[in-house]
Amino acid sequence: MKTHGIALVATATGLLTTWTAVTLSHLTASEMKAPGLKFAHVVDLTHTLDEDTPYIPVRNITFPFRKTPIATFAANGVAAYRWEIHEHLGTHIDAPSHFFEGGLPVDRLPVDSLIVPLVVIDISTKGVSDPNSSLTVADIETWERRHGRIPQHAAVMMVSGWDSRIEDAKAFVNADASGVMHFPGYSPAAASFLARSREVSGIGVDTLSIDPGVDTTYTVHKAWLASGKWAVELVANLRQVPASGATVFVGAAKVRGATGGPVRLLAVW
Amino acid sequence: MKTHGIALVATATGLLTTWTAVTLSHLTASEMKAPGLKFAHVVDLTHTLDEDTPYIPVRNITFPFRKTPIATFAANGVAAYRWEIHEHLGTHIDAPSHFFEGGLPVDRLPVDSLIVPLVVIDISTKGVSDPNSSLTVADIETWERRHGRIPQHAAVMMVSGWDSRIEDAKAFVNADASGVMHFPGYSPAAASFLARSREVSGIGVDTLSIDPGVDTTYTVHKAWLASGKWAVELVANLRQVPASGATVFVGAAKVRGATGGPVRLLAVW
Repeated sequence: MKTHGIALVATATGLLTTWTAVTLSHLTASEMKAPGLKFAHVVDLTHTLDEDTPYIPVRNITFPFRKTPIATFAANGVAAYRWEIHEHLGTHIDAPSHFFEGGLPVDRLPVDSLIVPLVVIDISTKGVSDPNSSLTVADIETWERRHGRIPQHAAVMMVSGWDSRIEDAKAFVNADASGVMHFPGYSPAAASFLARSREVSGIGVDTLSIDPGVDTTYTVHKAWLASGKWAVELVANLRQVPASGATVFVGAAKVRGATGGPVRLLAVW
Repeated sequence: MKTHGIALVATATGLLTTWTAVTLSHLTASEMKAPGLKFAHVVDLTHTLDEDTPYIPVRNITFPFRKTPIATFAANGVAAYRWEIHEHLGTHIDAPSHFFEGGLPVDRLPVDSLIVPLVVIDISTKGVSDPNSSLTVADIETWERRHGRIPQHAAVMMVSGWDSRIEDAKAFVNADASGVMHFPGYSPAAASFLARSREVSGIGVDTLSIDPGVDTTYTVHKAWLASGKWAVELVANLRQVPASGATVFVGAAKVRGATGGPVRLLAVW
């Protein structure tokens, strides 16, 4: 006896793609009839966090992340670690409470904003050549001419090509002699357009910040988080997912009152 | 132009349910035709972690979780915290590396094992009355007679009714005068059966451990994690999801070499 109300079936509607995603070979034709969501690809959009992960320097923080054994095989027959971590490291989420007193913390973000259609906007042509470039309203318009209007409640992610620098933290942060960073982000107008005219759930970037590094006043953070929505930063592997048609799961650690925190991001389609 | 190869459509196949899940009122009929996975319900299976969350006492750990400001609105115009946390707190995942040297750590768990069909087995009739009870092979057989064979790659979650104690950490841990805990878990035979005869991806419990509290030698942890699969503990809200037909997303924080860590668990159907 089935107790659920909705079943889902998959239909092939186009050519197979050449994305380098995990292809689920265990999804045989007969299993496609089993209950549950059906999809053919999974891509992990999450960088692995460790002591070498690039990060924005923060006052009073002398290390970004530390993992210390609290049990070892030799002494205890079991292994476990304690972490010291701050909320804005690695592939992570920003909640409205990061910039606004009384803004939603991570644990109170609406759960239905955490599984949403994924829109990927690629600005790598300018992003790689100009570290001060931004995703603009014109880039959104170009995407919409090709793929149609951005779906309601979507997560919009910027690909700047910046994650090719991930193994070189200094090149990733890209600070100049005066300490100002240079990497792509959103233009304030693009962020406002997405918040007000497209009702998206969240935005993301493959760089360290939704603000271009050169903006030291966090204009986009303030405009975006004022809208009550989330942002994710340091997103991985966005070139491996389609520009339209995937769904993203935003697995934000649920800590009471958190302004941010580690997030596991998976794209499926 | 679509660049993706698979589109998904939903078909209603039964009566609507009365689950107290988030119902996605924004999924109108026209949107059901948009690209992306389609589902009608989302349930958050994650407890909110804070200083009061019940935990298994660990040697050398005098506090379970601590959150300290590193920036405040008054001083910095922005808020952020630093966390001290260990890997086996709150709604969390255990990786094979927790009990086996060379076992897979969290960051290397196969990504396609993290979005899988959800099977919920309810033993609350005995779980509530007998804190030393276990989910047995007979309970799995009873579930399969009603719902069919457990799907390959499923996540199997035990509901013991224990999460009704979540606001009372002492009652949740339920340690006796000698320090031995008493709460339900899996029987070793049931864990072996799921690992060997049903090829599931992972198992979960609404208690603090996949081992019944009374087993101080971690028999089930050893048997289960030896299979190379994950487990999740302190799972929330399992009574709000159907016994069969949902899909679970296992959003495990991706820290290099972690033996466990916080996980965001969402069920959709």
